[in-house]
Amino acid sequence: MTTIRDIAKKLNLSISTVSKGLSGASDVSKETRKLVLNTALKMGYVPRRTRPASPVKICVFIENMGYERVEQFGYDIIIGFKLAAATKQWDVSIVPMSLNKSNGIQYEEYMYSNHYAGGFLLGFDLNDDFLRQLKKTTIPTVLLDNVVYNKYVSCLGVDNQEGIFCAVQYLAGLGHKSIAMLNGDPQSWVSAERLSGFRLGMSYYGLTVREELIANGDFTLSDCATKFVSRFIKAGATAIVCASDVLAHGVLCELYRLGLRVPDDMSVVGFDDLPIAAYATPPLTTIRQDRLAIGKNVCLLLEQIMKGNRINRLMLIPELVVRSSTGRPRTREIHLK
Amino acid sequence: MTTIRDIAKKLNLSISTVSKGLSGASDVSKETRKLVLNTALKMGYVPRRTRPASPVKICVFIENMGYERVEQFGYDIIIGFKLAAATKQWDVSIVPMSLNKSNGIQYEEYMYSNHYAGGFLLGFDLNDDFLRQLKKTTIPTVLLDNVVYNKYVSCLGVDNQEGIFCAVQYLAGLGHKSIAMLNGDPQSWVSAERLSGFRLGMSYYGLTVREELIANGDFTLSDCATKFVSRFIKAGATAIVCASDVLAHGVLCELYRLGLRVPDDMSVVGFDDLPIAAYATPPLTTIRQDRLAIGKNVCLLLEQIMKGNRINRLMLIPELVVRSSTGRPRTREIHLK
Repeated sequence: MTTIRDIAKKLNLSISTVSKGLSGASDVSKETRKLVLNTALKMGYVPRRTRPASPVKICVFIENMGYERVEQFGYDIIIGFKLAAATKQWDVSIVPMSLNKSNGIQYEEYMYSNHYAGGFLLGFDLNDDFLRQLKKTTIPTVLLDNVVYNKYVSCLGVDNQEGIFCAVQYLAGLGHKSIAMLNGDPQSWVSAERLSGFRLGMSYYGLTVREELIANGDFTLSDCATKFVSRFIKAGATAIVCASDVLAHGVLCELYRLGLRVPDDMSVVGFDDLPIAAYATPPLTTIRQDRLAIGKNVCLLLEQIMKGNRINRLMLIPELVVRSSTGRPRTREIHLK
Repeated sequence: MTTIRDIAKKLNLSISTVSKGLSGASDVSKETRKLVLNTALKMGYVPRRTRPASPVKICVFIENMGYERVEQFGYDIIIGFKLAAATKQWDVSIVPMSLNKSNGIQYEEYMYSNHYAGGFLLGFDLNDDFLRQLKKTTIPTVLLDNVVYNKYVSCLGVDNQEGIFCAVQYLAGLGHKSIAMLNGDPQSWVSAERLSGFRLGMSYYGLTVREELIANGDFTLSDCATKFVSRFIKAGATAIVCASDVLAHGVLCELYRLGLRVPDDMSVVGFDDLPIAAYATPPLTTIRQDRLAIGKNVCLLLEQIMKGNRINRLMLIPELVVRSSTGRPRTREIHLK
């Protein structure tokens, strides 16, 4: 087997010059490098790995989403991903975008310069520049709850439309006709999907969508429910479908403050099945997103993209979890204090 | 290693009695069986497999779709699936539904009684009873180009909406404003998806959808294009987006018969990228469905369902393949013979 020593001998160069030529060190002239490489090629030189193969590094970018505490939406997703990644000995770094926002980092540049083989992005809204950049990236990337068409990007999430459809189906089955929807941020892709599920469900069950019974809140801000609840009550709603458990929790608090009972006076449905859903008063009927499964599927998708499998979207089944916050529509009249 | 002979010797029983005791045959008393099993346990007896583990059997049901010849839509899907299944040593049977139609077979019953561990269904239309049955099945099943919500069923296909959206985007970019859509069977789920992609694309590019420029043909019948082409021309269409290459081929033939030139007088776009697309006159611009990849992903999904991963839908990226059947809108007036 040809060694660096053989090449050095043949070219009458020092071993260190040949080594530098092969590795492309800057203190060797272009001509020498070319000569060394050509000779190495002709002599059948095969470089030896000097270090063991470095592990595959994956970078997770998080924005607009908590993940550090068990009650936060991102927590189980990250756990699920890390568990699955560990079985492949992948090295996972978590980068909250807020740290980088001010630096205006470029996705592809950041990934290459830090030797990341793949990325996982969660919590990004429709206007984020990273999403625009993803349209052209060649870095295998999984994107949660968004859609980008690029063969190196796979989009993942539960079927949000179906989730809200199920909630409406369940409420319609209980006899509700005036159903309100407290949606999430209008800048979020899932808000559009959930609203479309709401409209589909209402229309499928022959119910009228009234625009005064639709509002946008903030997925993660319980307080923002306050102002919408009275509005929905005045407009005659007997049930409120919320785009997150946090929003539903805000609705429960506001109904309690107004002296109304759930589900006797108002049915409430959440989304996500965060730990708070089961511990709410009363325990919240919700649409479960299996977040551990989401995390595990990130791993599956990254591996598939790396193998050249052009998966554009993978959607998981949401699940209606019936607890105590839903019942038949109220029969008594209610008066706001 | 302890053998049946050793146990028989120890207990002073015949080999056949010990064997029956171990296997639980009915002509051995409960007491003898207990004695044999306890002795076998104490002596460290390990039963030998008498047969190798039987392979996982998968059943493929095909309806409304050719798969036996390379030019047919199902061919590469089945090849892709069989290739991937072979790496897992799965045993694949193909069952054309037409053989069973008259027998009114029940999916679950058929699968259990024939020891199938999983199913793959392709070509079924919305009204097929099998689709209704799939809502409740517990057999891991992959369904092509349809959607059923059940944790044991995963739905697979290219993103049909995005495919037709890309076709409209491309034609709009060439300057077309009057674009017609020759869709497939109205009973097919993909027809609805493709029509929705058409409407989305037209609206996104500020073009008007005219209902007289939309028609339904039969995906696999080239001839049915005949009657629609004149209608589209009279209504002023400068481009026709077809829901299959076979339909597009029919359009090309009819335009030729009418003495019109493609793309000078009319642009034509197909769907699928079947072998006929490249050999059409002129070679057909189309939306490619990577059918080998579809087949391979059937295997991936079946395996995931068997592992308990609740994937509801997996969508692959369609790809616009530009050939010679598309160009700028005609400038001359055309007159039908």
